[in-house]
Amino acid sequence: METSIQKIKKPDLATLEANPLDSAGLYPNPEKLNPKEQIDLETLGKMVGHSIVSVKQFDRKLIVELSKFAALLEASDIASCHPLDGKLIITAFFEPSTRTRTSFESAVLRLDGKIISIADGQTTGMAKGESLADIGEMFNAYGDAVVMRHTETDSVQQLMETLRLPLINAGNGSGEHPTQALADWYAILKWNPKLAGKMHPEDKIHLGILGTPGSMRAVKSFLLMSLIFEDNLKEISIVSEMADPLGEELAKELSERDININITNDINDVLADLDVIYMNSIAFLGDSYKSLDSRFKLHKDSKLKKKAVVLHPLARLDELSPSLDETNHNLYFTQAHGAVFIRQALLISVLNRFDHLPENFLQNK
Amino acid sequence: METSIQKIKKPDLATLEANPLDSAGLYPNPEKLNPKEQIDLETLGKMVGHSIVSVKQFDRKLIVELSKFAALLEASDIASCHPLDGKLIITAFFEPSTRTRTSFESAVLRLDGKIISIADGQTTGMAKGESLADIGEMFNAYGDAVVMRHTETDSVQQLMETLRLPLINAGNGSGEHPTQALADWYAILKWNPKLAGKMHPEDKIHLGILGTPGSMRAVKSFLLMSLIFEDNLKEISIVSEMADPLGEELAKELSERDININITNDINDVLADLDVIYMNSIAFLGDSYKSLDSRFKLHKDSKLKKKAVVLHPLARLDELSPSLDETNHNLYFTQAHGAVFIRQALLISVLNRFDHLPENFLQNK
Amino acid sequence: METSIQKIKKPDLATLEANPLDSAGLYPNPEKLNPKEQIDLETLGKMVGHSIVSVKQFDRKLIVELSKFAALLEASDIASCHPLDGKLIITAFFEPSTRTRTSFESAVLRLDGKIISIADGQTTGMAKGESLADIGEMFNAYGDAVVMRHTETDSVQQLMETLRLPLINAGNGSGEHPTQALADWYAILKWNPKLAGKMHPEDKIHLGILGTPGSMRAVKSFLLMSLIFEDNLKEISIVSEMADPLGEELAKELSERDININITNDINDVLADLDVIYMNSIAFLGDSYKSLDSRFKLHKDSKLKKKAVVLHPLARLDELSPSLDETNHNLYFTQAHGAVFIRQALLISVLNRFDHLPENFLQNK
Repeated sequence: METSIQKIKKPDLATLEANPLDSAGLYPNPEKLNPKEQIDLETLGKMVGHSIVSVKQFDRKLIVELSKFAALLEASDIASCHPLDGKLIITAFFEPSTRTRTSFESAVLRLDGKIISIADGQTTGMAKGESLADIGEMFNAYGDAVVMRHTETDSVQQLMETLRLPLINAGNGSGEHPTQALADWYAILKWNPKLAGKMHPEDKIHLGILGTPGSMRAVKSFLLMSLIFEDNLKEISIVSEMADPLGEELAKELSERDININITNDINDVLADLDVIYMNSIAFLGDSYKSLDSRFKLHKDSKLKKKAVVLHPLARLDELSPSLDETNHNLYFTQAHGAVFIRQALLISVLNRFDHLPENFLQNK
Repeated sequence: METSIQKIKKPDLATLEANPLDSAGLYPNPEKLNPKEQIDLETLGKMVGHSIVSVKQFDRKLIVELSKFAALLEASDIASCHPLDGKLIITAFFEPSTRTRTSFESAVLRLDGKIISIADGQTTGMAKGESLADIGEMFNAYGDAVVMRHTETDSVQQLMETLRLPLINAGNGSGEHPTQALADWYAILKWNPKLAGKMHPEDKIHLGILGTPGSMRAVKSFLLMSLIFEDNLKEISIVSEMADPLGEELAKELSERDININITNDINDVLADLDVIYMNSIAFLGDSYKSLDSRFKLHKDSKLKKKAVVLHPLARLDELSPSLDETNHNLYFTQAHGAVFIRQALLISVLNRFDHLPENFLQNK
Repeated sequence: METSIQKIKKPDLATLEANPLDSAGLYPNPEKLNPKEQIDLETLGKMVGHSIVSVKQFDRKLIVELSKFAALLEASDIASCHPLDGKLIITAFFEPSTRTRTSFESAVLRLDGKIISIADGQTTGMAKGESLADIGEMFNAYGDAVVMRHTETDSVQQLMETLRLPLINAGNGSGEHPTQALADWYAILKWNPKLAGKMHPEDKIHLGILGTPGSMRAVKSFLLMSLIFEDNLKEISIVSEMADPLGEELAKELSERDININITNDINDVLADLDVIYMNSIAFLGDSYKSLDSRFKLHKDSKLKKKAVVLHPLARLDELSPSLDETNHNLYFTQAHGAVFIRQALLISVLNRFDHLPENFLQNK
């Protein structure tokens, strides 16, 4: 073959440990997250048979154990154990999303589970007026778990009136997106495992969040999950062009806590002090978008702290410049790459398939 | 985890026998349909290699044996035998339908078969003018069977000009929907197994059908299949807002038989005498719907006979009130739940995979 | 069952050898292509880890070895070896195509690989402005190979900026469609295996191509692949209604070669001398089509050479009459039928799964 055609080479995870950024552009070796500790099966076991609809179902212990489990899955090849063999997951994307749908489908198929795929709500009975309660009854007959994304916030509650299978909420209107928050914090814990425990005051981090938590579900879930680590946060800065980015419920939640919250409409006000910056495509408004200016953008020459890292759930427009992709600030590729594994950890736990893992897998031997 | 999150528990089929309505809201134990009898393999074997396009291909013996086979599949876990291993089924939904497509996909995947999914005809060559005959030739190269739904009534005939694989008709224009009728009668036979044989005159049932059999394919197939049991039917009442709900072909078919047919435009005229009521979303007219009044609706306070049962192929709008869901009249959840199993029975038979069942499975030991 | 229902019978490949056209309408036994020779593993091995984006990556040796490998796959049942077990292929059809997508999905599923299916670009982040480079980064996390079709010609180059998996180009704007050309030549080599080697002058063939190679990617790829066999071609006639069917790049390519090229706007000018006629739906112009006259159509009474054969990548409108389907001129069904196997040969090679074939498979014992 013509040698001018690019030869594909898969990254060798074994060489990751030495290099902060490996050849695939991924951040630290996931195994650093879990040196030689056992994973607490009792903690993970609490998820068996449960639906995952809100970040409020999680505590720090559970997030950390799930992340350790995800790290083990990321660094191992457990496909030969067929962990989800015989399990049928319905990906019901009434609100379409190729990225999230294919992430879940990859997570399931890699573990030998099976998928029934609904990629668009337009062609369903729902479009004709069928109730979500009836759709829940239908799903009961077809599969073992449901992953749903829907344009309506109360879709989760409606489906769960009749659904007798675990539901993984992949985004409900302006509600939540809990597995995205898990993917976000899995990446943060890889970057700085000390956040899992008790940190010295001088190590605590200043977290910046670009977006409108009150109405953007991924941002809301991320903020809520960050509060679970609040004792390790020095401050949270919200960067939004909206007058009231939090909304009533979140404002109340935050006022009941000790954490310093600071709201600004210009990222450059706080950028020099941020350790973790959560970026977002705030320009998307349904099917159209508006153009935002430099107060809401990051690029290579932005005044980032030397060791600051950037997250972004992706897809991105121009708020996060590709000029940052090759820098050490790029945690968003690690974040995207790890999302499949945190979802695998979640599904294996919810569907109680710990017994399908290799012997001593969770003991990390 | 928060205990306020609903914990999912799968119903234990073993406890069904004692309770008319189990915790999952399903009607009687499917095993009641098949106490200890063998299933007649010779009868089922007639379907090997055949397409299933019309109810007219069935007789009572075949419907009963298929239902017994479906009941066995519903009450057993035969996944470990991989009955459809190596078989690739193409679900060609040129007219979209999430419910029916996912029902077939679940049926196949649960038996370890594989699926190639066409969820919408809009994006196919067909939309550009390609003939169904050419699409049939294409399918010959890709799979082992085809399940098709199409807006045109003559689509089945056109595809079968060239298709050399078994075709399962999942709805062809205003033609038929044979597997839906099978799912309907599978539920009815579970409710009253005596309908399979010769009944005493006083046990014969009055069947009510809401809908327009002449133009609604599921209704037509259900009516045609009901005629196969006509000697156990006291009367059939058709409830329709149309002047001529049967159309020429069906009217002729019915006039050649002995059965009492009665047509009305108000369900309340006959409700007090109906034993089985087949409801339907007659309000759907393509992509729009009209609102119908109480002459075409059922709810908890409707004057139903004490032991009357209701069927509905679903999706439903407001013609069948959720207030009936928790009552003993609800046979429609059993109907929906059983549809996957009757489709599995059909596919195993058509694809001649009896030898992939556990030893003595059909002898029901 | 009613005997009037068509009983499906699968063609028995073993009987093909005696009959030029078998009962399934397929041309010669694929095994004729590969009497008892070994397949050259070293040649096939050059494809390991490579993307397949252009016909220019191929030479005659590779096309012939791939065709021999495809013929072996077509005549054998190697499913039990699970050649693509553990491999996850993403079919990314941002420009929808049911025919090509289902062909690839069948190819993968038959070999026990897995599929993540994107059937339409309308519902993806791409529709909202996400870059293909970011989509490439996403795919890296989800699968082992990508098959992509896209409306933009530079989509392949953009995706490969970040994609670290092999990409199979299933059509990029007005660029190329290399696997279609491989399917075309696989069929031609089945029809006349001598084209693989050195032919006597009197055996050389006159090739006719209907279409506009400059702007129609399948036609362009077919023409470019035909040039690889130019020493066995007497002449190439291009039949097109466009004034400049080749465009600058192809015109230059052709002028540097010895082959006789002849351009006409009426197929009847050359028909009597053509040995192989490549037909095409030139009437498609995006989502509409224009009606063409007899200068661009073939039917049973067209003045074809007695042993001339016709190719067509399908879907077809009225440029290729079904009256030719039952004649010996019909190579297009063989072409369509073989496409799955040439794609299997390609995928097994690119993904380096030769070790998953039965022992001595490639030695053809």
